[in-house]
Parts: sequence; structure tokens; C-alpha cells
Amino acid sequence: MLTRDIAQALSGRLEGDGSIDVERLVHPNRAERPTDLALAMSADAAGALLNTKARAAVICDRHRPPSASAGLAAVITVGEGRTALAVLTALFDRGPGQEEGVHPTAVVAADAEIAAGASIGAYVVIGRGSRIGPRTTIMPQATIGSDVTVGADGLLHSGVRVGDGCTLGERVIVHANAVIGADGFSFAPDLMTAAAFTAGLTVRRVHSLGNVVVGDDVEIGACTTIDRATLESTRIGHGTKIDDHCHIGHNVTIGESCILCGMVGISGSVRLGDRVRLGGGVGIGDHVHVGDQAVVAAGSGVGTNVPAGEFVSGYPALPHWRSAEQQVYLGRQRRLHDRVAAMVSRLDALEEALNLKK
Amino acid sequence: MLTRDIAQALSGRLEGDGSIDVERLVHPNRAERPTDLALAMSADAAGALLNTKARAAVICDRHRPPSASAGLAAVITVGEGRTALAVLTALFDRGPGQEEGVHPTAVVAADAEIAAGASIGAYVVIGRGSRIGPRTTIMPQATIGSDVTVGADGLLHSGVRVGDGCTLGERVIVHANAVIGADGFSFAPDLMTAAAFTAGLTVRRVHSLGNVVVGDDVEIGACTTIDRATLESTRIGHGTKIDDHCHIGHNVTIGESCILCGMVGISGSVRLGDRVRLGGGVGIGDHVHVGDQAVVAAGSGVGTNVPAGEFVSGYPALPHWRSAEQQVYLGRQRRLHDRVAAMVSRLDALEEALNLKK
Amino acid sequence: MLTRDIAQALSGRLEGDGSIDVERLVHPNRAERPTDLALAMSADAAGALLNTKARAAVICDRHRPPSASAGLAAVITVGEGRTALAVLTALFDRGPGQEEGVHPTAVVAADAEIAAGASIGAYVVIGRGSRIGPRTTIMPQATIGSDVTVGADGLLHSGVRVGDGCTLGERVIVHANAVIGADGFSFAPDLMTAAAFTAGLTVRRVHSLGNVVVGDDVEIGACTTIDRATLESTRIGHGTKIDDHCHIGHNVTIGESCILCGMVGISGSVRLGDRVRLGGGVGIGDHVHVGDQAVVAAGSGVGTNVPAGEFVSGYPALPHWRSAEQQVYLGRQRRLHDRVAAMVSRLDALEEALNLKK
Repeated sequence: MLTRDIAQALSGRLEGDGSIDVERLVHPNRAERPTDLALAMSADAAGALLNTKARAAVICDRHRPPSASAGLAAVITVGEGRTALAVLTALFDRGPGQEEGVHPTAVVAADAEIAAGASIGAYVVIGRGSRIGPRTTIMPQATIGSDVTVGADGLLHSGVRVGDGCTLGERVIVHANAVIGADGFSFAPDLMTAAAFTAGLTVRRVHSLGNVVVGDDVEIGACTTIDRATLESTRIGHGTKIDDHCHIGHNVTIGESCILCGMVGISGSVRLGDRVRLGGGVGIGDHVHVGDQAVVAAGSGVGTNVPAGEFVSGYPALPHWRSAEQQVYLGRQRRLHDRVAAMVSRLDALEEALNLKK
Repeated sequence: MLTRDIAQALSGRLEGDGSIDVERLVHPNRAERPTDLALAMSADAAGALLNTKARAAVICDRHRPPSASAGLAAVITVGEGRTALAVLTALFDRGPGQEEGVHPTAVVAADAEIAAGASIGAYVVIGRGSRIGPRTTIMPQATIGSDVTVGADGLLHSGVRVGDGCTLGERVIVHANAVIGADGFSFAPDLMTAAAFTAGLTVRRVHSLGNVVVGDDVEIGACTTIDRATLESTRIGHGTKIDDHCHIGHNVTIGESCILCGMVGISGSVRLGDRVRLGGGVGIGDHVHVGDQAVVAAGSGVGTNVPAGEFVSGYPALPHWRSAEQQVYLGRQRRLHDRVAAMVSRLDALEEALNLKK
Repeated sequence: MLTRDIAQALSGRLEGDGSIDVERLVHPNRAERPTDLALAMSADAAGALLNTKARAAVICDRHRPPSASAGLAAVITVGEGRTALAVLTALFDRGPGQEEGVHPTAVVAADAEIAAGASIGAYVVIGRGSRIGPRTTIMPQATIGSDVTVGADGLLHSGVRVGDGCTLGERVIVHANAVIGADGFSFAPDLMTAAAFTAGLTVRRVHSLGNVVVGDDVEIGACTTIDRATLESTRIGHGTKIDDHCHIGHNVTIGESCILCGMVGISGSVRLGDRVRLGGGVGIGDHVHVGDQAVVAAGSGVGTNVPAGEFVSGYPALPHWRSAEQQVYLGRQRRLHDRVAAMVSRLDALEEALNLKK
């Protein structure tokens, strides 16, 4: 890719040679070939440009030292580093590299529809009545159940399991060994609450007849599980991004453009609004509602509803200013105990002086 | 299925037409076809019956409005909603839909025994000496090691891995990508405790020669892992239900009819009694014993033994009344500090009045 | 294996018959056959030797009762039990039992290199340019991407996914359904912190162009995920052991001989030193550094750097003596409140005596 095209894609300012053909994106210290493009998005990395072997570099305006371009044949300067990183990594991503068409070892039901440009890898199994959208890639050994719909331009990695009747939108990415559409964990009586259980009543399984509906532009992490609904749909809204090792229970509804960091656990029938952000390891109890744009700090346990826009933390989760305050006071407990002990001495002295002591 | 048969299966009261043939279970608002059976287990859903397109409905007695049956040709009334839901969803569950017999692509060892009525899916691998029980279904791409026994009427979903020598009882359900029989995490010296580690001694692996024994009627969630024992068996008792993303360490014994919600982590050599219930995200330290019918609240960390029947919560877990009390006092810390500060002023004033101050 | 050879491997003291051929390692109570070797590493187990059906036993010096060898034809006495357990279990481990060579159903790219003595199982897929080292075993249905290197004497279990360009050292063990080299969870703007997100800016994906580099003698648990770096490498140092269900984010560097117990979550760009030990369920926030030989107690949440050698616990994690102290004071809150209330009464009485009350 030519430096001038990269500058244009980044809306950046190009100084020097626009015709250098670069092939790889590297830290300035890692550059080895004339076709490396050095990326300097921090002050440290910008400093390292002085000794880089790269001929071309992308620099973040803010971190640009005066001498940055010393030995470079081309310098592209950008404003916001993180957005530039997104654009650049997209430009240099060569994708999964799997050929178009259906691998001869794939077992595809006779009535399944594989759209033009789709790529179905080795040992993939696709069930009856399922439809795979245009240009969607399914990597080796993934399993697609019956009556599944996967939209256009998707990417399902190896070992992904999509259960019967589930629906994935356009441009959905699912990482390896994720499971969409396992049965919900649901019994009668409700065993985490019912006194009946202790009385030894027979446990009956509530079967999961519903499905999972995943919106457009959703990303689902490796080993993440999303359970199907009892009767209707567990729903993941457009643009929501879910990290590795998350668990999303049955009957859950997640809004649009939410962020779920790694190891988040969402119990049955939870509702998240739009643009909700959950830090790593957050747990949310069943039937809880979390309002639009609420933020839950990493490691928090949420047992009650969270209003829109609220920032909560802790276990049990409270408004963040309150749990932060609690932490401060927790750190002062010894001092408080000492202070109270000192007051007792003073009280004793006072009472003695007044002969109030018995 | 005919409304009269459904009423009978539910032990419910049928009013109206017993010969309506229904095919699908839906919320009253979702009914679209004359073959839909509307399910109204909440007051809201019962209200929605007034406008449903369904001709038949199941109503929970308690939520039944006087006019519920207005436009309906058949109404089945039941007492306990959740049990009815279990029965109904079982009636309408069409199962995995995989044909009986061994798929031509399955690799089954010559001496493995596949019982009558079993269904072995595409690309399943079954090792030497393993036995699959009658009517058990193994979905595509599952791996069964050597000398494994799976009982009758089981269902193992895609990507399940069962290690060599493990045993599963009757009617066991294992969800996609679960792993039964990985090696235990065990080293010499014991690296989480031993001072020897710090001294730089060589770390030696304790190999796992034992197996996992899973009882009858156990359900194991997607991406759950159960490690094999060092010499004997990691055991899961009859009727125990384990949600997605749980981890059960080596040498663990879990009793009968326990409930482990999502993301529970159980360290090595833990013993759970019967009918123990663990909320989501609970962690249990190694060698801990949890007595029969004990309950651990979601998100708790259990480091010490829990007596039978106890309800514990928190990190570290305490009897629930104690951790609840701690939470209450945690919320009053600022008030207490203010109160102590006010007392100091009063003490100062008293001492000044008595000329006790130095 | 003969008792004399076992004694030698253990550097133990043999009394009695050195020519007994044993085949199985069991608890004294489980011995059934003359070829069983009874293992008594605890006082209880040593006591059980009196009634064992085994003819040979290994006893830990410390637990050896005077009469231990009563009915036994051979007794091997060892000093340190846990190390002996490691040696013994290694001796009796028969390994995965998969034949050498490439299974006819494996799909191996034409230019992939499979070294002598390697074993490639049924339905394994290996991509272009990958190299599998001598004597390495890859179990059924694992997926190896393109340009992957796996060193000698490795063992990759069923369903393991290794992404393009990743590198595994010598003697690496990866348990079933683990995922090495999924994409990092990274967006622009950074959605867990950026105000821009709330303003509704477009979310851009930061693509993961880097890889994962796993050192020698590393063990990786079932369903564990290790994400690839953005540009360079996520690194796992030599000798590090990782339990099931861990998640290691992109750009992370883990040192040598670390121990990560089950369900540990490590966010992006974290750096762990050497010989760091993390208890089960620990979470570490992004960009945190944990120094050499630091220990983090189970269930802790680490949001700030941990110095070398420190032992931290709690959420948020503090030096252990501090969080232990906090727990002690937490347990005394009611008493403190009562004490303060009593002092208020005494103050009231004093002020009344002095007529200071308004």
C-alpha cells in the first residue's frame, strides 16, 4: 500500500515521499525492512523513530518531536492516535485467508443456502434449512444447526456452535469455540429461590424452545455462551461488542452498542439498555434492568436495577461515589477505633474528675 | 397436539374445545396462527389474552382475569405456573432432530459399542472400548475418548469433549463445547502455598490418572469444564444441574441434586453435599466442604467450610445475616465518623470547662 | 513396572520384594489386584494399609505407622509426599494413546511440515506454512491456523484452536477447547473510558495483526483463551502454568514460571513478572504491572500495580495485611457502633452535670 493512500485513509498530513509501498505495521524498534511502516502513537515510540529502520512512519501530532522525520522518507501525521490505529489495522488486516466456496469435507444439508462469495471451511456442518449470507466466512469445524440464518459479511471462527433456529445479522464476528443457542438454565421450581426444592420435590427442566437473535455489527468473543430463550428470543442489539468468556443467560435482552468486557456473567431475563458498558468480570443478577448508558465497574456484582446513565461499582454494586466513599472509610477503620479508644480514656478521666463513675 | 391431551398432561382444567390441534407455544401477543397455544403465566400475559390471535390458551389460576376466555375456543387453567411451563416446554420440545444411527463421517473405534437407537453425528470421534447407551444422541464434532461409558437417553452437543475413562450416567445432557476429563491443575510443590516455589525448586506436574464419574439426570452447561481426579474420580451426583462456564477442579465430589449457576469455580478436592445451591460466579477454595442444602449467594468467595443448611454470602463468605449486617454498617460509616467528630468537640468543651486540658 | 525401579525413580527406600510388577496406582482401600501399588501419602491412607489388598505400597516417611508393612510384600518409603506423587503419576501415565502419523481424515496444507514421530488425529485441520514439532500429538478436531509453529513433544487436546501466526514452544500442553490467538477486544475510542462513546461517535474496531508466543513447558487449561496482540505478541513465558477458563487479553506479557489458577481474567496490556501466582478468579485491570514473585489471593480484583514480592488480596486488592485488617474491623462494626452510642450517653450525663447542655 502506498504512503499517499494511507495518508488519505487516515485523513492525515503527508510529508515526503507518497509512493513508498509498505506492507507491515510495526513499532519503530521492530522495523526491519524498507517496506515496514513505523507506528508512533506514544511519546516513547515517537522517540524511537530516531533509530528506526523504517523509511515511513505514522506519528500522532501530540507526540511528535521536532526531529522526528530526520531519517525518514515519509511521515504521516494524524490527530487522534487510537482512531488512526483502528483505520491502519483494518487496512493491514489480511483476513482469515480461507478460499471462497464450500470445502469438500463440509457437510451441508441439501436444502441449506450458501450465498455467493461465502466460504465454508473444512469439516463445517450446516443443518437443514439454514442460510449463510454473501461473503460470510465460516472457519473449519464450526457447527451451524438447522434453520439458522447468518447475514452477509460475517466471520465465524473454528469451533463456533450456533444452535437451531438462531439468527445472526450482517457483519457479525464470532470468535472460536463460542456457543450461541445452548439451552437456558431453568428449572421448576426455581431452585435458587424456592422452598419447595428443600422439601424434596421433583426438579423439572424448563425446556428452551426459543432462539437467539444477534443484530448487525455484533462481535462475540472466544468461548462466550449465549443461551436461547424459553419461548421467544434472547436478543443482542446492533453494534454490541462482547469479549471472551462472557455468559449471557436465557431471555436476556441487550440493547445496541453495548460493551461487555471479558468474563461478564448475565443471568436470565436481564435487560440492558443501549450503550451500556460492563467492565471485566461483572455479574448481573436475574431480572435486573440496566438503563441506557449506564456503566458498571470491573468486578462488580449487580443485584438491583441500575438507572440510565448511572455509574455503579462494588459488590453489591452501588453508585460509584458511594462505594468509593465506603472504600475510603474502610481504610480509616483502625484510626477510628483508635480515636474512639482515646475518647473512652478522656471520658473516664472526666467522669473521675466529676465523681460520676460508679 | 390436542388441547384435551395438553390439559391432561398438565392436570389442568379444560374449558371449551378439547380437539384444537396446537403446534407452538407462544406469548399471547406473539400468536399468529390458529395452531398457536397462548401461554399466560403472569398478570400481564393474562391481560394480553383479550387481544390474542390464538384460539387456545393455558392460564395460571392466580392471574386469570374474569374475561380471559372471551375470544378463546379453549382455555386450560393450571395451578402452579412454573411447573406447567416445565411440562409444556417438554411437550413441545422437538429435540435435536438428528437421525438414528452412525453418520458415515463419524470415526468410531472398531471395538466401541453403539447401542440401538443411538445417534452419532457428523465428524464425531469415538475411541477404543467406549460404549454409547441406547437412544443417546451425540451431535456433530463431539469427541469421546477411549474407555468412556455414556448411559442411555443422553444428549451430548457439538464440540463436547469427554476424556479417556470417564463415565456418564443415564439421561445426561452436556451442552456444546463442555469439557469432561481434562487434567487437574496440580503441581509439586503446591505452588499456591509452598515456600519452596520461591526458592526456585523445579516444578513437577502431578499427572491425572483418575477419571470423572457423572451420575444420572445431570445437566452440564456449555463451555463448562470438569477435571479428572489424580487417582480416583471427580464425582458429580445424580440430578445435579450445572450451568454454563463452570469449572470443577480435580478430586472434587459434588452430591446429588445440587444447583451450580453460571461461572461457578470449584477448586480441587472440594466436597459439596446434596442439594447444595451455588449462585452465579461463586468461587470455592480447595479442600472446602459445603454441607447438605447449604446455599451460597451469587458472587461469594468461600474459603472455609460451610455447615449443612447454612446460607452464606460475601467475600470472604460469612453467614448471610452477618454479611448483610456488615453491608448495613458499611453504609453508615460516614455518619459514624461525623458522630465521632462531634463527640470530640463535646469532649474538648467538657475538658475546657473543667480545666482538664493540657 | 518393578518395585525396585519405582523405588529408584523415587529415590526411596525399598524394603521387601523388588521384583513385584505393578500396573496401577491406587489408594490402599481401592486396591483389588496383586498388581496394584497402594499409595499412602496421608496418615489416614497409611492406616488403611493394614487392610489393603495390595502387595506393594509407597509410604510417606512422616505418616508411616510402625506396623505399616505388616501384610505387604514390598514397601517403598519416601521423604516428601507431593514430589513422590508427581514422579509416580508421571511413571503411570500412559499418555493420550494416539498413534503416530497423520490420520487419513486430517486436512493438512500441502506446505505444512509434520515432524517425525508427531501424531495428528482425526479431523484435525492444519493451515498453510505451519510446522508441528517432533513427537507432538494433536488430538482429534483441533484446528491449527496458517504459519503456526508448535515445538517438540507437545500435546494439544481436542478442539484446541491455534490462530494464524502463533508460536508454541517445546513440551507445551494445551487442554481441550482452549483458544490461542483470538482477536483482542479493542476499539476506538476506548469504550470503557472515552467520553466520546457517550457522544455517539462511530465505534471502530482495532484489528489484531500480532500473534501469541507461548514459551517452553507451558500448560494451558481447558476453555482458556489467549488473545493475539495488536501489532506484536501476547507472550507467555517458559514454565508458566495456566488453569482452565482463564482469559488473557491482547498485548499481555506473562513472565516465566507463573501460576494462574482457574478463571483468572487478565485485561489488555497487563505485564506479569516471573513466578507470579494468581489464585482462582483473580481479575487484573488493563495496563497493570505485577512484579516478580507477587502473589494475589483468590477472588481479588487488582486495579493498580503490585510491587515485586507483594502479597495482595481483596477487591480492590490491597497488601494482604491491610485487607485482612479491614476484614477484622468489618467484623467489629456493630460493637463499635454500640460503643459510640454508649459514649454519647456518658457525654450527655457529663454535660448535664456541668450544665453545658443547651
